[in-house]
Amino acid sequence: MRDFLPREAMLRQHLVERIGEVYERYGFQRIETPALEEIDRLLNSEGGDNEKLIYKVLKRGLDFEAAVDEASVVDLGLRYDLTVPLARFFATNSAELLSPFKSIQIAPVWRAERPQKGRYRQFMQCDIDVLGDSSALSEAELVLATADALDAVGVGEFSVRINDRRILTGLVAAAGFSAAQHAAAFIVLDKLDKIGFDGVERELTELSDETTAAAMRKLLQGLEDARGVDETLDAMPPGIDEAALASVRAIVDAIVAVKPELKINVDATLVRGQGYYTGTIFELEHDELTGSLAGGGRYDRMIGKLSGVEVPAVGLSIGFERLFDIMAARNSLPDDKRRVVLLHSPEATAAAVLGAAQSLRAQGDVVRTDVAMKNRNAQFERFEKAGFTHWAKVEPSGSVEVHDFSHERS
Amino acid sequence: MRDFLPREAMLRQHLVERIGEVYERYGFQRIETPALEEIDRLLNSEGGDNEKLIYKVLKRGLDFEAAVDEASVVDLGLRYDLTVPLARFFATNSAELLSPFKSIQIAPVWRAERPQKGRYRQFMQCDIDVLGDSSALSEAELVLATADALDAVGVGEFSVRINDRRILTGLVAAAGFSAAQHAAAFIVLDKLDKIGFDGVERELTELSDETTAAAMRKLLQGLEDARGVDETLDAMPPGIDEAALASVRAIVDAIVAVKPELKINVDATLVRGQGYYTGTIFELEHDELTGSLAGGGRYDRMIGKLSGVEVPAVGLSIGFERLFDIMAARNSLPDDKRRVVLLHSPEATAAAVLGAAQSLRAQGDVVRTDVAMKNRNAQFERFEKAGFTHWAKVEPSGSVEVHDFSHERS
Repeated sequence: MRDFLPREAMLRQHLVERIGEVYERYGFQRIETPALEEIDRLLNSEGGDNEKLIYKVLKRGLDFEAAVDEASVVDLGLRYDLTVPLARFFATNSAELLSPFKSIQIAPVWRAERPQKGRYRQFMQCDIDVLGDSSALSEAELVLATADALDAVGVGEFSVRINDRRILTGLVAAAGFSAAQHAAAFIVLDKLDKIGFDGVERELTELSDETTAAAMRKLLQGLEDARGVDETLDAMPPGIDEAALASVRAIVDAIVAVKPELKINVDATLVRGQGYYTGTIFELEHDELTGSLAGGGRYDRMIGKLSGVEVPAVGLSIGFERLFDIMAARNSLPDDKRRVVLLHSPEATAAAVLGAAQSLRAQGDVVRTDVAMKNRNAQFERFEKAGFTHWAKVEPSGSVEVHDFSHERS
Repeated sequence: MRDFLPREAMLRQHLVERIGEVYERYGFQRIETPALEEIDRLLNSEGGDNEKLIYKVLKRGLDFEAAVDEASVVDLGLRYDLTVPLARFFATNSAELLSPFKSIQIAPVWRAERPQKGRYRQFMQCDIDVLGDSSALSEAELVLATADALDAVGVGEFSVRINDRRILTGLVAAAGFSAAQHAAAFIVLDKLDKIGFDGVERELTELSDETTAAAMRKLLQGLEDARGVDETLDAMPPGIDEAALASVRAIVDAIVAVKPELKINVDATLVRGQGYYTGTIFELEHDELTGSLAGGGRYDRMIGKLSGVEVPAVGLSIGFERLFDIMAARNSLPDDKRRVVLLHSPEATAAAVLGAAQSLRAQGDVVRTDVAMKNRNAQFERFEKAGFTHWAKVEPSGSVEVHDFSHERS
């Protein structure tokens, strides 16, 4: 878990506000749920390994002597994602919500991970979801909104990969895997980036036989060699779910029509690990990352399983901490506001100092008041490092002239 | 703990952003700390009764069989306020921070309160603090920034009460209480709003004797009868700390000079419960509340006690949930953006719908796409309730005309 210093916290707030603003412009609506959920709900939430990483909260007013095991002393836990709370929220409040419900959740989650680079025990998730619509429009809106949000924060170039679990199913079936082998085959395919085609073929052979594994490899390599969306879809073997192919085509067409500059590709090798996806899956990739910058997909059965309310659903989540790490490394200020330090002597009256500050603020400047130090250079360096850009001095006359730090010191 | 529906969540986000923006304009800097702190720190944090309300987190990988008591199974807790994390943050990071350090913290805290009206188990705190400055400028900045923030969200009229713990000490000493009785006398005075002068005199008599209690009552009533800041300060009995009187006068003068329209009064009966205050104390009051809308004061010894780093400190905290409750009751939208529902037929292509939506968004509108229902009135009612203000329809020609809900239905 991390503390964020002022420049980092300023950047994080800027990212959160800009992303949220774009998502709102797309008609998505924010919701807020509590950080703590009932432990039984969290422990029965399709969360896989994440359920092992839950921070569990002790019951209050507990008689510890009478406790028999861990389960008997715990009643709440910190959420490990925002999908479980969304399902509970939706089941509780659906009568009050528009249908389809298009939600924004930008909030922290907690996982008791072993500390390692890029993994944090508290981290922000930044999710949009559409509950109650099974049309391709939802997928297109999720991708367009996320692409606009990433453009709004200026992260630089990224590209979209799209696939469909039904296409994947058709491909493994076409290669010759039995239905019982599909889930295991997906897990192997998901490792392609790490172990390459040779590794995938080897593991698939172990799972099935040489012929099937080789057929799978040939299919995937053929699709990878196809250039562009149309060629990839045309290169699909017979027997793939027509509805899935039409859906992917409609999503891509809509995105390209609205945002032709966005790089988008159908990638038949895209799997995404989670078992709950039922249709479209997508990832956004950025040059400065090995993993994805955002990802998601359709999970039409999960809300029903979690909440008892059956509803089609699709979501897309920005990897907020990854985005933050990219932006923080650039060390630039989030906007071009003048951030002014207004210096005064220790003898200046509070009224004079605050009056001068207020007149600058009325012009839109950020103004911090400070006592002028003798060692001006050292003081200015600290201000610049903290993100301030200008300085001014309260003169006995009441006049205030604003100077640029870098100009003054050059 | 509460879920917040879309209109509520939109309002909360608006309040958080506007308040944070004003605080930033005053040169305060955001920080972020994790929700979880070490349990030992939380349990030794001058938190009084709040320490009993901590949500405690179970150790991970625990051997429950070997556990001997509650303390042995717990290592973390959810923060119950933002001051303890601030002290830890400051001790850890002070070398990286500007001095004085002017912080913004807008973040949730958790207390296992018994459920009752207006008390929540998770609630937002909204604090600004100045660490490292003992001048009256800090107090004036805190009050001005908070008053500007409350103006920015349009909460309506409020007033400021200011006092100083050193003045309170002088008053109880002047009435005849011994130093050992001061803290207990403060606790009685703090009840004035609830039990009135008669009740206060009765309880002070129990604490000391009739003469002392009557003297205290006479002093306070005399000060209460004084009109305006100057008259109140002039009506102080002899023996009150001159520095405290000068400090209050300087704070009020500075605030009045910059924001003459703000109602501000010296209130010798203002105590504020917390034992850690050492100097100035203040509260902001609003007609629609029985309690205060914001409050704070100077706590020059607390950061040192919590962190080992001695530093003068003063803070002011907006009662965010109270502010939210006032604003939510008005049921108005937070801004005058057009929030448009763009209706289309189920047969419309995603490209046509999303293209039309994008052209409206480019004008600054919020746009939600939706399939047009047969029962238009019912659908429009739901949209209006959800905070949408306008509607439009995707015409086959591609043209989009935006209409006002209320106009259309009248």
